[in-house]
Amino acid sequence: MSEPLLVLALEGIPEVQPGDDLGTLLGAALARTGGALPLRADDVLVVTSKIVAKAEGAFVDLATVQPRPEAVEFASRWSRDPRQVEVVMRQAVRVVRADLGVLVVETRHGFVLANAGVDASNVGPRSGAVVLLLPDDPDASARRIRGAIADRFGVAPAVVVSDSMGRPWRVGITDCAIGVAGMRPLDDLRGTPDADGRPMSATIRAVADEIAAAAELALGKTARRPAALVRGATPPTGEGSIAEVIFPPEYDLFR
Amino acid sequence: MSEPLLVLALEGIPEVQPGDDLGTLLGAALARTGGALPLRADDVLVVTSKIVAKAEGAFVDLATVQPRPEAVEFASRWSRDPRQVEVVMRQAVRVVRADLGVLVVETRHGFVLANAGVDASNVGPRSGAVVLLLPDDPDASARRIRGAIADRFGVAPAVVVSDSMGRPWRVGITDCAIGVAGMRPLDDLRGTPDADGRPMSATIRAVADEIAAAAELALGKTARRPAALVRGATPPTGEGSIAEVIFPPEYDLFR
Repeated sequence: MSEPLLVLALEGIPEVQPGDDLGTLLGAALARTGGALPLRADDVLVVTSKIVAKAEGAFVDLATVQPRPEAVEFASRWSRDPRQVEVVMRQAVRVVRADLGVLVVETRHGFVLANAGVDASNVGPRSGAVVLLLPDDPDASARRIRGAIADRFGVAPAVVVSDSMGRPWRVGITDCAIGVAGMRPLDDLRGTPDADGRPMSATIRAVADEIAAAAELALGKTARRPAALVRGATPPTGEGSIAEVIFPPEYDLFR
Repeated sequence: MSEPLLVLALEGIPEVQPGDDLGTLLGAALARTGGALPLRADDVLVVTSKIVAKAEGAFVDLATVQPRPEAVEFASRWSRDPRQVEVVMRQAVRVVRADLGVLVVETRHGFVLANAGVDASNVGPRSGAVVLLLPDDPDASARRIRGAIADRFGVAPAVVVSDSMGRPWRVGITDCAIGVAGMRPLDDLRGTPDADGRPMSATIRAVADEIAAAAELALGKTARRPAALVRGATPPTGEGSIAEVIFPPEYDLFR
């Protein structure tokens, strides 16, 4: 019998403010959440990018933003806030699509995201006046959280920083990993035999993304639940970096 | 305290053969799996398309396939089996990309999939001689399974038929839903307030896809575990159809 997969939404995380110590907040939440302790080294702590970015102060005050003419034009065509569009354009290293009011862009990190992951929902008390960017270096954010958890509990679970992403051809968003620490994001089965002994040619499991998706099921979008503990997912061992998930341009059919 | 999300891999499902009664096999597996019973109406039974297609006999014997010239050319250029390429081409209503040995196509169902979901791994005792197609009507397959489970246990959990999908820009595959019964695949939060009271403008949670992903974490790809029970995911109520997930062409930035 295999171990069940268990996802626990962490309890009682307050509204996160710039400068908050996420490691401390998450450690307290783990201690408060029934069934979370004792932590295991193969647990995965999933933390939404929203609270990581809030703690890191990745806000942009829209009153300070002077939109460029292209942002004004796009915003007026699609009834959007030109200052928000400007912020998205600043986060983009490449525009993949700009239509129907959505800018799909490649960020500095290499992610291709609608509106560059710039977020106006659930941004806290200054809602409407500010938007939230992605964390600057989500792998580093994950490593810091992992270090703090290890210091407190003497066990170092893996950490995934998650964010919501749309996808071509399918309606709706799923949560994916934008940063990892203490696990590799992919489980590369290429060349290993299938159940019939035939080598699998193209099977790379996107485990960190599936872990982020499982966490989102337990967290939802409206309640104040920004972190979850995932137990039983068998995360691939290794230090890991989300860069492993970014398609090299020469293999990217959709670049 | 919110209920944890729990994913149980079902125990002891044998190699599925054409004509097998999946409802009976899955019912027996549920009865055998510790913690699965009593079933709940808000449980979700996730069944991989692989065993659905096997039970429905969706095999193609490669010895019977005469590849068209375009299939021979593409296969020879990328060292693939021209008969497999031919099968993929037959499943396609539209070719989205054909490069690097991969045909990304739109299937009759409306899914955009690498190699049309045609599968040569884990296909059973005739491995190498046959490939497996997607189920003909995965919503109908899900409904039949749901009906059989309801008949046996007197409770009708939702059913998701899952399959692995690649995605643009990110390496690796995640499991997604290709058929549903007894749940809506999307949780449409547009217009509902966020935690700050601000209406969310673009939030449609792809719950069925996240449920499929969570199930995959518990199942993996190599062991003989083709079905899982997901408890605590709060599936959106309604009869549901996977057609809700297909982007209408007029809103599809990537058509």
